[in-house]
Amino acid sequence: MNSNHLPASDQRPIGVFDSGVGGLTVVKQLLKKFPWESIVYFGDTARIPYGTKSEEIVRRYALEDSIFLLDKNVKVVVVACNTASAIAVPMLKEILTVPVIGVIEPGAKAAVYYSKNRKIGVIGTAATIRSNSYTKEILALSPEAQIIPQACPLFVPLVEEGWTDDETTYLIAERYLQGLRLNNIDTLILGCTHYPLLKNAIQKTVGKKVKLVDSGVETAEAVEQILKKNKLLATIEQMPKNYFFLSDMPYKFQEIAERFLERSIPHVETINFENYLLGKGEQFWKKYQTAQTKKY
Amino acid sequence: MNSNHLPASDQRPIGVFDSGVGGLTVVKQLLKKFPWESIVYFGDTARIPYGTKSEEIVRRYALEDSIFLLDKNVKVVVVACNTASAIAVPMLKEILTVPVIGVIEPGAKAAVYYSKNRKIGVIGTAATIRSNSYTKEILALSPEAQIIPQACPLFVPLVEEGWTDDETTYLIAERYLQGLRLNNIDTLILGCTHYPLLKNAIQKTVGKKVKLVDSGVETAEAVEQILKKNKLLATIEQMPKNYFFLSDMPYKFQEIAERFLERSIPHVETINFENYLLGKGEQFWKKYQTAQTKKY
Repeated sequence: MNSNHLPASDQRPIGVFDSGVGGLTVVKQLLKKFPWESIVYFGDTARIPYGTKSEEIVRRYALEDSIFLLDKNVKVVVVACNTASAIAVPMLKEILTVPVIGVIEPGAKAAVYYSKNRKIGVIGTAATIRSNSYTKEILALSPEAQIIPQACPLFVPLVEEGWTDDETTYLIAERYLQGLRLNNIDTLILGCTHYPLLKNAIQKTVGKKVKLVDSGVETAEAVEQILKKNKLLATIEQMPKNYFFLSDMPYKFQEIAERFLERSIPHVETINFENYLLGKGEQFWKKYQTAQTKKY
Repeated sequence: MNSNHLPASDQRPIGVFDSGVGGLTVVKQLLKKFPWESIVYFGDTARIPYGTKSEEIVRRYALEDSIFLLDKNVKVVVVACNTASAIAVPMLKEILTVPVIGVIEPGAKAAVYYSKNRKIGVIGTAATIRSNSYTKEILALSPEAQIIPQACPLFVPLVEEGWTDDETTYLIAERYLQGLRLNNIDTLILGCTHYPLLKNAIQKTVGKKVKLVDSGVETAEAVEQILKKNKLLATIEQMPKNYFFLSDMPYKFQEIAERFLERSIPHVETINFENYLLGKGEQFWKKYQTAQTKKY
């Protein structure tokens, strides 16, 4: 890609949010792909996890996170959280004034592209699996596909404990994934941003012939397409400025973040997100209440 | 106890809060002990878990949860969450106008009472263990005690997955608890309200001679003492009214709650806690900000 030939350059940052640090696997792919794009990341670590919460709460949180990014003047909002993507993207697309990209659509598209036997496994948090978002998205693209979904609630705590290649991990992976293997899937969507860190155990359990789809990689690809299409690419070759905001500073954050990002995080700012929400006033949030409870 | 002989009767409810449903193991013990006391329970399921968050956030959440209970006219606040007890109880005792009881002090007292060899194990979430609250509390009572702490971050998700008596559970329990067994403890504090549901696996792993201290049981005992001392007991024999409030309705709540409570929950109300906080206004919360960041 030689983006210098594009007429305009939009130096505004790419906004990315997640319920915590998992979205950094998406940021990692964005950093790889875009040398001149700045990124503003918001990790809602004070309210993590989203995966066990109701749809209404997830929509509300996703909206609040997006508004925070818009206040930072982002040109696009990347929902780097499978749960929020599954539940809140249609609402966000309707409300926000900038393009919105979730991780579901790119992951589903890639799976349909890779699968030959049309047997596609999907793993994720309970909320992501319950939402059936990947299933709907895949069936829209490939109505004859057979989708085998499996919630793996213990995978996130395993990653956060650092047990990514451990006897326990293999035992739990076997329990969760044996059904997928028996169903002879040839493609498996890692429907949670934490799961790329368990790639080894997952690949060994489902068998090395199964193609694992990393939504971070596919989402970075989709971001490129949408920036191109909307003429939003930063084409001026200058050092990007990246900002990382968290609503809470979790224990061992730097260590965990670097495991996800595979590089060091220079500057992280912890913000009092509740004060931010309070500061905007009750009226501001009230106007969005209908959107949160609407059926999408 | 024949409380009919007490002169006064305070019919106000006992307030109990937790980050989620775990505190119901404490409610279970309160219901057993007090036939005439009403209970107002608040489970902050929209922001669960507290165990992975910073001290400042945990203090803020604990304060907000307590204020909500005070708005329901409770006569005592029971902090049925180990993380919040470990981190926020000193602050709450200073700020609140009613007695405050956490689960740490009763658990520590009981352990000191039961232990003969003075080798006491403590298990809990990462935040509870890091806070050293049990250690400080035990050492204040028994300076010669030897305390062996162990964080068990995977126990909560195991309970919530329902894998309480499973091959995986035993393997994980062995990894976490073998050090305690080798240290020859004779008493083990279950420093997390979820852990009583893993009693079987824990007991088998540490050995049947080890006394397990269930903080729910000990806390109910402490509540009785404080109500007596402050003449706050409900002594009129009338049917208590129990109210359960949640900040989010998690998937399978009834099923999980009944597993914790060992009885059915008749009525649960989901409240929009964020709107509740917003409704009180920025000024209201601002006055507590110093207390949250103070060193206790």
